[in-house]
Amino acid sequence: MASESGKLWGGRFVGAVDPIMEKFNSSITYDRHLWEVDVQGSKAYSRGLEKAGLLTKAEMDQILHGLDKVAEEWAQGTFKLSPNDEDIHTANERRLKELIGETAGKLHTGRSRNDQVVTDLRLWMRHNCSALSALLRELIGTMVDRAEAERDTLFPGYTHLQRAQPIRWSHWILSGAIAGNPLGVDRELLRAELNFGAITLNSMDATSERDFVAEFLFWASLCMTHLSRMAEDLILYGTKEFNFVQLSDAYSTGSSLMPQKKNPDSLELIRSKAGRVFGRCAGLLMTLKGLPSTYNKDLQEDKEAVFEVSDTMSAVLQVATGVISTLQVQHENMAQALSPDMLATDLAYYLVRKGMPFRQAHEASGKAVFMAETKGVALNQLSLQELQTISPLFSGDVSQVWDYSHSVEQYTALGGTARSSVDWQIAQVRALLRAQQA
Amino acid sequence: MASESGKLWGGRFVGAVDPIMEKFNSSITYDRHLWEVDVQGSKAYSRGLEKAGLLTKAEMDQILHGLDKVAEEWAQGTFKLSPNDEDIHTANERRLKELIGETAGKLHTGRSRNDQVVTDLRLWMRHNCSALSALLRELIGTMVDRAEAERDTLFPGYTHLQRAQPIRWSHWILSGAIAGNPLGVDRELLRAELNFGAITLNSMDATSERDFVAEFLFWASLCMTHLSRMAEDLILYGTKEFNFVQLSDAYSTGSSLMPQKKNPDSLELIRSKAGRVFGRCAGLLMTLKGLPSTYNKDLQEDKEAVFEVSDTMSAVLQVATGVISTLQVQHENMAQALSPDMLATDLAYYLVRKGMPFRQAHEASGKAVFMAETKGVALNQLSLQELQTISPLFSGDVSQVWDYSHSVEQYTALGGTARSSVDWQIAQVRALLRAQQA
Amino acid sequence: MASESGKLWGGRFVGAVDPIMEKFNSSITYDRHLWEVDVQGSKAYSRGLEKAGLLTKAEMDQILHGLDKVAEEWAQGTFKLSPNDEDIHTANERRLKELIGETAGKLHTGRSRNDQVVTDLRLWMRHNCSALSALLRELIGTMVDRAEAERDTLFPGYTHLQRAQPIRWSHWILSGAIAGNPLGVDRELLRAELNFGAITLNSMDATSERDFVAEFLFWASLCMTHLSRMAEDLILYGTKEFNFVQLSDAYSTGSSLMPQKKNPDSLELIRSKAGRVFGRCAGLLMTLKGLPSTYNKDLQEDKEAVFEVSDTMSAVLQVATGVISTLQVQHENMAQALSPDMLATDLAYYLVRKGMPFRQAHEASGKAVFMAETKGVALNQLSLQELQTISPLFSGDVSQVWDYSHSVEQYTALGGTARSSVDWQIAQVRALLRAQQA
Amino acid sequence: MASESGKLWGGRFVGAVDPIMEKFNSSITYDRHLWEVDVQGSKAYSRGLEKAGLLTKAEMDQILHGLDKVAEEWAQGTFKLSPNDEDIHTANERRLKELIGETAGKLHTGRSRNDQVVTDLRLWMRHNCSALSALLRELIGTMVDRAEAERDTLFPGYTHLQRAQPIRWSHWILSGAIAGNPLGVDRELLRAELNFGAITLNSMDATSERDFVAEFLFWASLCMTHLSRMAEDLILYGTKEFNFVQLSDAYSTGSSLMPQKKNPDSLELIRSKAGRVFGRCAGLLMTLKGLPSTYNKDLQEDKEAVFEVSDTMSAVLQVATGVISTLQVQHENMAQALSPDMLATDLAYYLVRKGMPFRQAHEASGKAVFMAETKGVALNQLSLQELQTISPLFSGDVSQVWDYSHSVEQYTALGGTARSSVDWQIAQVRALLRAQQA
Repeated sequence: MASESGKLWGGRFVGAVDPIMEKFNSSITYDRHLWEVDVQGSKAYSRGLEKAGLLTKAEMDQILHGLDKVAEEWAQGTFKLSPNDEDIHTANERRLKELIGETAGKLHTGRSRNDQVVTDLRLWMRHNCSALSALLRELIGTMVDRAEAERDTLFPGYTHLQRAQPIRWSHWILSGAIAGNPLGVDRELLRAELNFGAITLNSMDATSERDFVAEFLFWASLCMTHLSRMAEDLILYGTKEFNFVQLSDAYSTGSSLMPQKKNPDSLELIRSKAGRVFGRCAGLLMTLKGLPSTYNKDLQEDKEAVFEVSDTMSAVLQVATGVISTLQVQHENMAQALSPDMLATDLAYYLVRKGMPFRQAHEASGKAVFMAETKGVALNQLSLQELQTISPLFSGDVSQVWDYSHSVEQYTALGGTARSSVDWQIAQVRALLRAQQA
Repeated sequence: MASESGKLWGGRFVGAVDPIMEKFNSSITYDRHLWEVDVQGSKAYSRGLEKAGLLTKAEMDQILHGLDKVAEEWAQGTFKLSPNDEDIHTANERRLKELIGETAGKLHTGRSRNDQVVTDLRLWMRHNCSALSALLRELIGTMVDRAEAERDTLFPGYTHLQRAQPIRWSHWILSGAIAGNPLGVDRELLRAELNFGAITLNSMDATSERDFVAEFLFWASLCMTHLSRMAEDLILYGTKEFNFVQLSDAYSTGSSLMPQKKNPDSLELIRSKAGRVFGRCAGLLMTLKGLPSTYNKDLQEDKEAVFEVSDTMSAVLQVATGVISTLQVQHENMAQALSPDMLATDLAYYLVRKGMPFRQAHEASGKAVFMAETKGVALNQLSLQELQTISPLFSGDVSQVWDYSHSVEQYTALGGTARSSVDWQIAQVRALLRAQQA
Repeated sequence: MASESGKLWGGRFVGAVDPIMEKFNSSITYDRHLWEVDVQGSKAYSRGLEKAGLLTKAEMDQILHGLDKVAEEWAQGTFKLSPNDEDIHTANERRLKELIGETAGKLHTGRSRNDQVVTDLRLWMRHNCSALSALLRELIGTMVDRAEAERDTLFPGYTHLQRAQPIRWSHWILSGAIAGNPLGVDRELLRAELNFGAITLNSMDATSERDFVAEFLFWASLCMTHLSRMAEDLILYGTKEFNFVQLSDAYSTGSSLMPQKKNPDSLELIRSKAGRVFGRCAGLLMTLKGLPSTYNKDLQEDKEAVFEVSDTMSAVLQVATGVISTLQVQHENMAQALSPDMLATDLAYYLVRKGMPFRQAHEASGKAVFMAETKGVALNQLSLQELQTISPLFSGDVSQVWDYSHSVEQYTALGGTARSSVDWQIAQVRALLRAQQA
Repeated sequence: MASESGKLWGGRFVGAVDPIMEKFNSSITYDRHLWEVDVQGSKAYSRGLEKAGLLTKAEMDQILHGLDKVAEEWAQGTFKLSPNDEDIHTANERRLKELIGETAGKLHTGRSRNDQVVTDLRLWMRHNCSALSALLRELIGTMVDRAEAERDTLFPGYTHLQRAQPIRWSHWILSGAIAGNPLGVDRELLRAELNFGAITLNSMDATSERDFVAEFLFWASLCMTHLSRMAEDLILYGTKEFNFVQLSDAYSTGSSLMPQKKNPDSLELIRSKAGRVFGRCAGLLMTLKGLPSTYNKDLQEDKEAVFEVSDTMSAVLQVATGVISTLQVQHENMAQALSPDMLATDLAYYLVRKGMPFRQAHEASGKAVFMAETKGVALNQLSLQELQTISPLFSGDVSQVWDYSHSVEQYTALGGTARSSVDWQIAQVRALLRAQQA
């Protein structure tokens, strides 16, 4: 009968252990990343057991010493996995027992594997977020250094990819630096989630919630979204058509055939990784959706997501730093891309300063643009008389409008594109970086 | 020639305005939600203009008065949209001009539509997150009240949906209350993102980044993921097979035919909304990916996402509060679901307390379970002699193990299922709620 | 006691019906879209009942007549919803009973609401996919017409957004037309999923699987991904820097201030909708994940997703058709963007035809490019003597290489950019369109 | 000056090659999966070159022989990668040149790397989809075998996880077999996308569209969604509370402590993988969104997604086959879970057969259920007199309603739960399997 033997249906496999299931179940191929924090966590736990009277001082010392030996083997690459080590925790415990004998069995008093898994991952992320945070600070630091050095280069600001108004190149760089600010990683993740000073409030929730993982994956997704936008801008600025920047050879793929064709592979890869990283975030949330509370094996999906995303972020941040640090700015091309029609808003402001309501001034400036276009001349080549047919408020001082440097200098409000404002932004971002490092 | 007239290809439409494009482009159907904050923002801006000397006191008063009139019309439902009002901002400005004449044109001096859009949305979200936060506090408050009232009801704790150890019902409720804690909405979103005390550092970034939207959508997604898990538990607990809880009629769909068949529609809808909310988050991030910097019309996708998610969260939180507040707990069924084999871990701890290493104790307890199973008796019906064949450490006091209340009382560590620990959790969550409300 | 009254916790609401729950549960606000197919389905079902002997001929006629009356009321806008109509099915049945009395009660013999819901949605999608398919054919038809008319316009082909080789403008248009081909909608969805000739194999699966919805949402996502790429290309081609195309005013948002600044809002909206549509697909799959089999209320999420995506696709396809049909191609700018270095590959092929292995020819051509760059001349201005220092295989006929028209004419393989090949593509796509229409 | 040297900002790296960029750019770590199809594709291409007169017969033979040697080295594990092999294509070409000298350079005449990449991936997927399809057929075959063997086991059908009506266990199994049907993989993917008999219509589109990848990832996502639902059902059916099935030890993780606690790890992992697989699909679509046409390096993301998803699907299908094939069905528990109230619909049909309209019969049956509940008896223990107080249509033959086997036998419509109908489903699925295999 079917239900007796379970063999009626001649499945691929019927035995004590299905080797594919074993591999499917096992996490050791990727959770070996955790060896160091697993030892660290076990050492802390054995101290706790001693304090609670569940280990003697001698037993604790024996365990601590044994764990140090385990760590040494991992560090030296001599740790040998056995076929039955299904995860890093069982591997380390098995080895500890081989090294110190039965006392090893006391280490797990009152601690479930699920506790260990989640504690290890939190510890690993604390280490790792620090490392990512340092890389992010390096990227932002590089951006700010460039912003400072190239403060006097003007180029077109765009909205809708249409030329709008002249801005400082530094203003663009800083918009990226600010978007990628590192507060996300440090502040929330480390302080609120991984700060072990705070106690997990509920033991059921402790083993089954993965908010710290989800939030890390979302931080990475949002950070990559910003970087994908910066990469898109730089890819465009590097086309023959824009020609505002040139990528260093170290970050391009040249072609022996077409030297003019330096492909911005580095930036394209940065742009593409936004999808991959977000895919991991989406995947984890789908896995969590509707899952019964407490531990279910489904939660094992968390680790590969975290490891892959962390590796991706690390590479992306380093490559982005390299790209920005070696980027050649084509100052002359930027200057040539500025044109008088980009000062039409300034022309309106000129009239506003003479007392005209903005909406009227806007209209008057529009008429001037149209007149210039009709006559086939540049906007700044309309004569004073011609301008005065539009509004009697125009007078000789209108010539001061036609100066790109003067134009950008008007935007002195905090966050604007005037030199003082850009300097202030540089100082603000530097202060943030210093605060983070402290 | 094709390129002259653009009419060679006889498209569906060739004229000055394509009505489908106009509708596609227009946001007025959904951004009317913003009328109140748009007026509020414009009033603040006109005060700024007066301070900067760009409006006289009289002009400012005229504008403020006009804006109040606009607001009044919206509030009373008498505001009439004109076919050319493509968004709430142009609608309000058009109406203001009708009411106060040319002075209205001065209101937009030095402010772009894009500034206005993003400021309005931030203001709206500040209002709205407060409202959601209050609903979340009400849900959590209800859960904590129940947790307090039903502290003495024990039932099986599950991992992998397999019965594990006895826990307090309150312990389960609190695991949900903690998972849904409102810190996310209030603290980060309101303080860091929407606190207008802080100044946006870079004007380019200010109009084009939508981190505050993305983070709100992600907060909602994560919150819904938790609620989907709570809903899943309650759906299971409400099946005939578990029979631990009964939903109030107000939150079920009964059937005139089968009174036994009370479908938990409310919980199923809560569970399902996790997908919808996350879909909006995924959609926004995909829209943002690779977008050139500064404003692009693509960003218009933000608002419908925010409005829909906010409405969904509001309904979900209220329905969840209603479900929890009217849920009938089947105390007797919970008690009957407890069985001696769930005390096997306690049996191991008994041996640990007598000095046996945990891994050995674990094994000894396993032997006892196997012996009971083989003999066809419950674990607590093994005689002392039988137990002593497994370990001489068993003595008469082992009978104390077979007491579910005693079992849960062992877990007095913070976060555990002992009464004192559950009381502490209740106090902690209440303190959080008070802190939020302040 | 808590569990008795369920009132201890003073929830927001304790009564027979929670009005928020009622609204949350109700689908009538959006499923009224289904009135027509609901009537259609019920008419077919009543004929089935008559055949099975469960309705007399007279009863069937009475029902059919009543349903026609219901449909008439919907069509004329006179159907009045009652507060208790929770969905379109109950509304129509309630109204039928008012119109024809008790016989109405026989209509639902042996048919569950869940059957009705899923059948209605399938019927609606069959209608709707036809409509979308027609719009898609119109877009593709417009593209093919333009491709034919503008076959002789050459411009740079790009890879990595770097200029690669000269191609025909039509070749680009056709790449878009092919990517957006309508086979997806018609063939799979209509034939395999919605073809009611085929019988659903399993009644449990019939009410709970939503593959036809998921596949529609994915088709729409993939289609939008293609359109987002086409929109991106056209946005770039419309920048001042590329200046290859100009959008018609009907599909741009001009600015009274800056006539030079015509924003490509239509294309930006098309690009952005890829996110929204995919978000719906992601949301539905997350809702389905881990759902117990057969009907659960979670499945109610399907309809709003389908309706919103269908509306979005309809608008996007129409706007895209309008954009393509009125687009002005800047033939001269396209011609000017071609430069001799884009013929470097042709120079290599010249050597291959003289017998040199490709990798060597590639290298030789690279040397020529480098030599031209070093001398500061265009590639086609190197003298024959200079070329012969690189390879003795160069002779007088090399001058034929420097002809863009000749270059594109080499690519006569099917799918290439030669005129004959483009003509073939036009014919192929037209044949597909005809096949679809039939 | 900054822009000259690019060194002012002291980036992490400034040199000819950034090693992190090199690693970031390189795909060799994962695209070595493609060695076999890369050789296969190159062999076919060299035959094409000979036909076109671009290779002599002798050169072609030399290349074919060299490629065989390359393949042999891969197969034997002796192929040595050099540090400059950035992908499988350059590695194979480099090695070929070492083996046969300059002639190797002719192999790439008129073929770009991007052509090669996309052709290789299509070839690999054709092989691989066949393998997945075979695994899927094995799973479905196993399910059908069980469905046949266990046709006579009845158990409760559920909707909303509430007991509805009795059904055959085979009916449930078949609902899963049908949901997971393999048509998706074979038919569309292989025939329409990867059938190299059909010619790619447009060369630009050919290298840049990844529909065949997106569709594969979506097929996998949808398939996993179905499997996640089947896994959820089996996890529930395996709880102590339902107790309908028991997982084989080979697919559970037992516990030495708690033998009663057999965790369904295999099913939980299957359920969880839906998230991972869909995450890859979401990631690819996000990467594609808004990408300029033709090749961009972003497209490199396709391969890791395909390889990971293919591996996951392979493991999931094999484990699922093992689970189903060894599952123990608890026939007695299933029988005991049936209760007379699940026949309330049958009671209504009894009245319909006596001439009562369905809605009235439904109400009458509801009254009977209520009466039984009030009297505290089972529905089938109401006396005929009692039933007749509800409707005079009840007579002695009502006793035939109270027979579960009789109940299921009523559903003889195709797709129903009657034995004949289940037999028909078995035959249909077997016919599909045979058709696939052919």
